[in-house]
Amino acid sequence: MAPANDRKVTGLLAATFTPLTAQGEVNLSVIGPYVDYLTEKQGIKGIFVNGTTGESMSLSVAERKDLAEEWCLRAKGRMDNVIIHVGCMSLKDSQDLARHAAEIGADGIAVISPSFFKPKTADALRRFLQEVASAAPTLPFYYYQIPSFTGVNVRDVIEDIEKLIPSFRGVKFSGSDLLDFGQCVSYSQPHWSVLYGVDEQLLAGLAMGANGAVGSTYNYMGCYVNQMISAFETKDLVKARTIQFKIQELVRYAIKLGFDIGVNKQLMAEVSGLHLGPPRLPVMPCSPDLAQLIIQKYQSIFV
Amino acid sequence: MAPANDRKVTGLLAATFTPLTAQGEVNLSVIGPYVDYLTEKQGIKGIFVNGTTGESMSLSVAERKDLAEEWCLRAKGRMDNVIIHVGCMSLKDSQDLARHAAEIGADGIAVISPSFFKPKTADALRRFLQEVASAAPTLPFYYYQIPSFTGVNVRDVIEDIEKLIPSFRGVKFSGSDLLDFGQCVSYSQPHWSVLYGVDEQLLAGLAMGANGAVGSTYNYMGCYVNQMISAFETKDLVKARTIQFKIQELVRYAIKLGFDIGVNKQLMAEVSGLHLGPPRLPVMPCSPDLAQLIIQKYQSIFV
Amino acid sequence: MAPANDRKVTGLLAATFTPLTAQGEVNLSVIGPYVDYLTEKQGIKGIFVNGTTGESMSLSVAERKDLAEEWCLRAKGRMDNVIIHVGCMSLKDSQDLARHAAEIGADGIAVISPSFFKPKTADALRRFLQEVASAAPTLPFYYYQIPSFTGVNVRDVIEDIEKLIPSFRGVKFSGSDLLDFGQCVSYSQPHWSVLYGVDEQLLAGLAMGANGAVGSTYNYMGCYVNQMISAFETKDLVKARTIQFKIQELVRYAIKLGFDIGVNKQLMAEVSGLHLGPPRLPVMPCSPDLAQLIIQKYQSIFV
Amino acid sequence: MAPANDRKVTGLLAATFTPLTAQGEVNLSVIGPYVDYLTEKQGIKGIFVNGTTGESMSLSVAERKDLAEEWCLRAKGRMDNVIIHVGCMSLKDSQDLARHAAEIGADGIAVISPSFFKPKTADALRRFLQEVASAAPTLPFYYYQIPSFTGVNVRDVIEDIEKLIPSFRGVKFSGSDLLDFGQCVSYSQPHWSVLYGVDEQLLAGLAMGANGAVGSTYNYMGCYVNQMISAFETKDLVKARTIQFKIQELVRYAIKLGFDIGVNKQLMAEVSGLHLGPPRLPVMPCSPDLAQLIIQKYQSIFV
Repeated sequence: MAPANDRKVTGLLAATFTPLTAQGEVNLSVIGPYVDYLTEKQGIKGIFVNGTTGESMSLSVAERKDLAEEWCLRAKGRMDNVIIHVGCMSLKDSQDLARHAAEIGADGIAVISPSFFKPKTADALRRFLQEVASAAPTLPFYYYQIPSFTGVNVRDVIEDIEKLIPSFRGVKFSGSDLLDFGQCVSYSQPHWSVLYGVDEQLLAGLAMGANGAVGSTYNYMGCYVNQMISAFETKDLVKARTIQFKIQELVRYAIKLGFDIGVNKQLMAEVSGLHLGPPRLPVMPCSPDLAQLIIQKYQSIFV
Repeated sequence: MAPANDRKVTGLLAATFTPLTAQGEVNLSVIGPYVDYLTEKQGIKGIFVNGTTGESMSLSVAERKDLAEEWCLRAKGRMDNVIIHVGCMSLKDSQDLARHAAEIGADGIAVISPSFFKPKTADALRRFLQEVASAAPTLPFYYYQIPSFTGVNVRDVIEDIEKLIPSFRGVKFSGSDLLDFGQCVSYSQPHWSVLYGVDEQLLAGLAMGANGAVGSTYNYMGCYVNQMISAFETKDLVKARTIQFKIQELVRYAIKLGFDIGVNKQLMAEVSGLHLGPPRLPVMPCSPDLAQLIIQKYQSIFV
Repeated sequence: MAPANDRKVTGLLAATFTPLTAQGEVNLSVIGPYVDYLTEKQGIKGIFVNGTTGESMSLSVAERKDLAEEWCLRAKGRMDNVIIHVGCMSLKDSQDLARHAAEIGADGIAVISPSFFKPKTADALRRFLQEVASAAPTLPFYYYQIPSFTGVNVRDVIEDIEKLIPSFRGVKFSGSDLLDFGQCVSYSQPHWSVLYGVDEQLLAGLAMGANGAVGSTYNYMGCYVNQMISAFETKDLVKARTIQFKIQELVRYAIKLGFDIGVNKQLMAEVSGLHLGPPRLPVMPCSPDLAQLIIQKYQSIFV
Repeated sequence: MAPANDRKVTGLLAATFTPLTAQGEVNLSVIGPYVDYLTEKQGIKGIFVNGTTGESMSLSVAERKDLAEEWCLRAKGRMDNVIIHVGCMSLKDSQDLARHAAEIGADGIAVISPSFFKPKTADALRRFLQEVASAAPTLPFYYYQIPSFTGVNVRDVIEDIEKLIPSFRGVKFSGSDLLDFGQCVSYSQPHWSVLYGVDEQLLAGLAMGANGAVGSTYNYMGCYVNQMISAFETKDLVKARTIQFKIQELVRYAIKLGFDIGVNKQLMAEVSGLHLGPPRLPVMPCSPDLAQLIIQKYQSIFV
């Protein structure tokens, strides 16, 4: 059974942060304003929910369902794509979340490889993905690659993959191995979407043929990255590079000071004014001083 | 609040495999005979449930609770220690499992560090552990270290740890950095247990002062390892080494052929006659031919 | 003292293989025909001598001098750039080779970081490079980055580097971290050259602003890569990608079969007809069967 | 042709530091007093010259010969073993140094694997070692393993090795994989010496059957380690552990502050009073403040 929806995913998708209360509980009330902010201020037309940025691995299955439901409720009709990440360490949990995503009307699901027990071969990974996809056969299925978690090449994973997973519709590739990425682009079918996931070198991904991009920094720099994409599409590489280098400058600065999901979340909170709360342990909250330094850099670069 | 139980954990604990049906569902009916086998055939007096060997990260929270309950039911009164591993990627899930372990009368809980989001410092890890321990303050708490998952030294984690975690009672150390291990032994309090977790070099751990050991191969080689420990205790290092080298010979052979949790589980099934079933994806089942080769080696070494 | 020559290095440089006799001795007689081949058949106008491809670390200092001399003798006047790599584990040896490169009229020198003792900071590396450069102050100096050998970012290495090394003229960047690479391009001075060194993703490097490229596969695929560069320069990204994907297809195929410097050398020998001989131990010779398989793939892709 | 000398190497060998002048040139004049110090103050009866501790990879071949000659001249007759490390990135250089070691009357040679081009298989490494050993067939030959440099197990390297290298006489094992180490001990022939090289966990190596040890800290802690070995030999493991834990405490302290070959060299200079000079770039000199802190710790632990 193939999904009805074969629309191509293009442009930028924001990988959403998960709003928590000060006490560390999921805070659904922020999601409506969050969708407003992304659409109105950043020109974002797609979201990738409960991924790495959303700290999904630190959430319970029940929390992930609550979040997925609220994001769908708030974003459907206002955004082109609401993709729910349903990858877990446990196949059972991933299947449970995949079924749920279908029930709530998500536009697609994405799955990362388990990383505690890593698949030893591309075939083992393919079989895992197949089991998850079969739980929601009507939803477009995207494989989400973080190379350090697998040790296998995406190109090997996607060989004849529609025979195993008829709903397969693309890849989110969050790695810097552009040999493997290019071979995915080269092999991809017309109805697939190959999305690049390393924000600070998206221009390279576009040159290699990416259809779109998913990333955390698009939450607060989407408007600038949209300009980069426009410049790229009009073949103005000099302008595209200028914007890419600015984004790199910020990311490099943040990395030097210590960049993690907690810092990233705090940056989004500061730029957007949304109350996103702290990250969940073992990620530590970002110190206010650190956030201020990076915000100042942000403002000096982009204003 | 400190746990009532300050008994030292000594000797061998078998890290239990999780029996599954051929369809991949948890199979509780094997657990009774499994306890019989360990006590009667391998001389094992303690078990470590739902750890890495038990594929706990591939199980749902509900499955882990069912397993913990059945293992407690079958082993309590027949074994000295039933320790339930409650580590998860999600703090919420770990707390839930810790509470449950207290309810079912486990002898202690153990917690591994989250590995998807790794703690960036020993302090971040300590805070995570504290949150889990506080959900079951009456149970002895053991920290379970796999160094590649953390990047922090155990010695840094356990500094003054009882101020944070009054129920802290020891460490399961599954690494080959015997500097860090030795410093744990050196720092450990009289009511703590420092357990070594690398089966194929346990003799080195004993020399460095381990109180006991936890491992998967003790499921099917416990009787031989008990002989090694006896030899070590009577200062017959030549004999202890002879046994250790045999175990190494088997493990080396298995590694050359491809040793993983699926192969390990099949070995236990073959040696014990228990119906343990396949592993869960993304771990692949062991081919019968591979299992036979290793069993032949096992028999040639130990018979 | 600054070098007289501030010509920008552009286009493709072939990283040369070192011809050996069947007995494993340096075979200078092949170098003349090798230069003929590169200029006449591959359209190559620059060479990078005694680099990784040239197995320089497996050569004695005397052998490296003999090779550098012969390459300069044969290529000067026929190629735009003859850059001699003088990096060694030992600072003394590198200085010796740098002096020699100046004496024989090389167009520039390049230096890799020592990798046995890795520099712990960018500053330690800068001081090492400074000591080498000072032995040949009239030659343009290029830093050659292989990220796994250093762990430091190039961008940190090149900060205000001309204050330390007046002859500094650029970077050969052999890594896939295009954040660091982009920041090098962004920071680079008009008289510097930023050369990309990962052949199979050169298109990404060009998009990010590379001035040129150095690589081993340009020895036998330079003519095709020149077409890719031309397409890129005329903004025909579709055509550029088509060529890049072909190169990736070959490299991916070779990697699957086992790609190393010995295989690479044999490919060049087969394609060019030059007698390059075996690699030197610990690199093993390429089996004839393996070489044939890859050659067949090469022919199926490019003919 | 087998070496005449089949004496077993036992006890502690100090891996010697290379004395440099303040200007960074080799300073042979310190070597006589250095031998005096080791024999008289630390009870050291063997040395391992031009190894990692001696920064041999940062030296030229000529410098290594000068050093080897002087160490032999000063130590022969006063020490039981003067082993010269002749490993280099280049086979040619290693053969040259091996021949030289035979000429100057060394008691043996040791060879590390090349690490720039790593051997892809145990067989490639064996062939490399064979080529070196054949240049000095009358000298006992020791293979020096640093696991991160090879990725192959020693046990695989030494299988039937005397058929390839008749002068093979043992291993210096500088790794924490005691499975591989134990299997080397188990396989070792009566006339071989299996020496352990991780100072801070030597006790584990002894338990696993090490014949002796080579290390840098024995330069300034040899007298204490000799006590540990004596305690181990009399089966007083409690006492042996007490000493091992003290050594670990110092090493752990130094690692926390930043321990490298430069710091290590400065420690030896401070403890011994010898003028060892700075390390060579890219290793940076140890700051006086850092050295003082570690020296204070040394004194607080051992006095």
